[in-house]
Amino acid sequence: MHTTEQLQQILDTAIQNLKFPDHPKQLYDPISYIINLGGKRVRPLLVLMATELFGADANESVHAAMAIEIFHNFTLVHDDIMDNAPLRRGQATVHEKWSTNVAILSGDVMMVEANKNLAKVNPVFLKDVLDTFNATAQGVCEGQQLDMEFEGRDDVSIEEYINMIRLKTAVLLGGALKLGAIIAGASAKDADLIEQFGENIGIAFQLQDDILDVYADPEKFGKQVGGDIIANKKTFLLLKALAKTDSLELQGWIANSNPNIQEKVQAVTAIYNELQIREEAEKEMMKYAAVAFQNLKDIEVPLANKHDLHELAEQLLKRNN
Amino acid sequence: MHTTEQLQQILDTAIQNLKFPDHPKQLYDPISYIINLGGKRVRPLLVLMATELFGADANESVHAAMAIEIFHNFTLVHDDIMDNAPLRRGQATVHEKWSTNVAILSGDVMMVEANKNLAKVNPVFLKDVLDTFNATAQGVCEGQQLDMEFEGRDDVSIEEYINMIRLKTAVLLGGALKLGAIIAGASAKDADLIEQFGENIGIAFQLQDDILDVYADPEKFGKQVGGDIIANKKTFLLLKALAKTDSLELQGWIANSNPNIQEKVQAVTAIYNELQIREEAEKEMMKYAAVAFQNLKDIEVPLANKHDLHELAEQLLKRNN
Repeated sequence: MHTTEQLQQILDTAIQNLKFPDHPKQLYDPISYIINLGGKRVRPLLVLMATELFGADANESVHAAMAIEIFHNFTLVHDDIMDNAPLRRGQATVHEKWSTNVAILSGDVMMVEANKNLAKVNPVFLKDVLDTFNATAQGVCEGQQLDMEFEGRDDVSIEEYINMIRLKTAVLLGGALKLGAIIAGASAKDADLIEQFGENIGIAFQLQDDILDVYADPEKFGKQVGGDIIANKKTFLLLKALAKTDSLELQGWIANSNPNIQEKVQAVTAIYNELQIREEAEKEMMKYAAVAFQNLKDIEVPLANKHDLHELAEQLLKRNN
Repeated sequence: MHTTEQLQQILDTAIQNLKFPDHPKQLYDPISYIINLGGKRVRPLLVLMATELFGADANESVHAAMAIEIFHNFTLVHDDIMDNAPLRRGQATVHEKWSTNVAILSGDVMMVEANKNLAKVNPVFLKDVLDTFNATAQGVCEGQQLDMEFEGRDDVSIEEYINMIRLKTAVLLGGALKLGAIIAGASAKDADLIEQFGENIGIAFQLQDDILDVYADPEKFGKQVGGDIIANKKTFLLLKALAKTDSLELQGWIANSNPNIQEKVQAVTAIYNELQIREEAEKEMMKYAAVAFQNLKDIEVPLANKHDLHELAEQLLKRNN
């Protein structure tokens, strides 16, 4: 088994070795640009870790890992158009740096590049790999659609919200792990368990994200604390608060189209504190984390094989930025 | 072997049987909408015809045909955003009827649906099918990018133009035929020949389109005769005319940002007539058609098998609308 650091090295090399055509430049330059903005490469790492969990060599699943990373970056490019986002990892988004048309079409060809990488996996596993990848990709699109729809709705339930973050964020973690498992020849039962592990970690991770947005240490947090509050984003925290109180003060802050931003963040945070929303969110997060770790425990491989994946999951859920 | 009419019946049934999820509605409704706008279904028909050309049953390649049809419709949805087109087959485009964001995301999920259909082909051929499909999809994206870039350039050569229409239009015809051939177990040589047949027919078809735009019978033509002239579209005719003359009159019409449209169409057509541009375009078209029919001739199957495909190609090149 490779160490996590060794796997990251394998990924870095594979990413550097990704080659796209030179021409037409405007079609392919944005691909290298977005992929080289960096990021933690968690998703492709999960592909490799799952392959090694089941006793195969990570090099067997490098192409699938690249497919997942390119697909993920494709969704970022298109989501940034839809969300009208100017920045991604502190740099101009593709539609800002080039144009919306370039971002649409480069995104499209990234989807093709993802599929080209996927087609390189061992043909024995190809059908299963495709079915898993396509189901994952479909889920991610559905999640983005629901996220957009929720902006215009004021009756989103907690259950709908959890389903949305499951689709938008968690199924890609689950799908990445399942791909790695399939390529290692894992049993269908174990492949499903590792997928569920990823989905549950993903939901816990997103809930942690919601909590950090309000309660992160501003010194360590990469972005503005309270960003979700300012944007009235329907996070678990806001939906839970709305479910627990019919406080006119909270509704007033939501309805106020031109508030003092600092006052709004302070006031809404105070309401959350009073309603013990942070504790509720942490309880929910721990619930999904507990199911995830049970999924991992149920997988029939030697305990030692699970160590690195367990540790990565712990780190993802303990982060403070 | 099925007749062409029988194959069209198989396609109609398969299209009617395409099922997409009900939810989220805004993600999936546009797929049914665009696919049911109709069209001649030439591309999926080519998949089936190629399968039967090589002695297999068209039902073997129905899933690949659906993948091609869904992919083609996906490109229409995204191209219409990029081209800012209000109408498609006389109806509102997806971004007009819903929104640009819906059109982007529905398009993305159509690409996934195309891949899901593709994954259903006989696993024996899956790797080859994917490689062909992905190369085709990549070519189509490159063609659209070049088409957009050409709008802003005034030094496009005839050679570049032919390469652009090859990518944007012809590779999909060639790819559709090659998919059908692969699924019938055709030899690599024959699969390449049928692909080249499709590409050459596709280029001839697009040149015919350029000619019809100027010289169609207005009574039979579905759209405004001279539309390309009005839009200064860099077709084979315009590029050839610019290469053959440094007529200030032609350049004047191109530079005029607010011309009398009827006068412009008449005047530019008169210049084309004087320069015998129609004859040049027809010669070029016949050149590609001749290569195409030679490709078909070179394929090692009984002559009788080639009849329907030959006839379809003839019809495509003889159409007057």
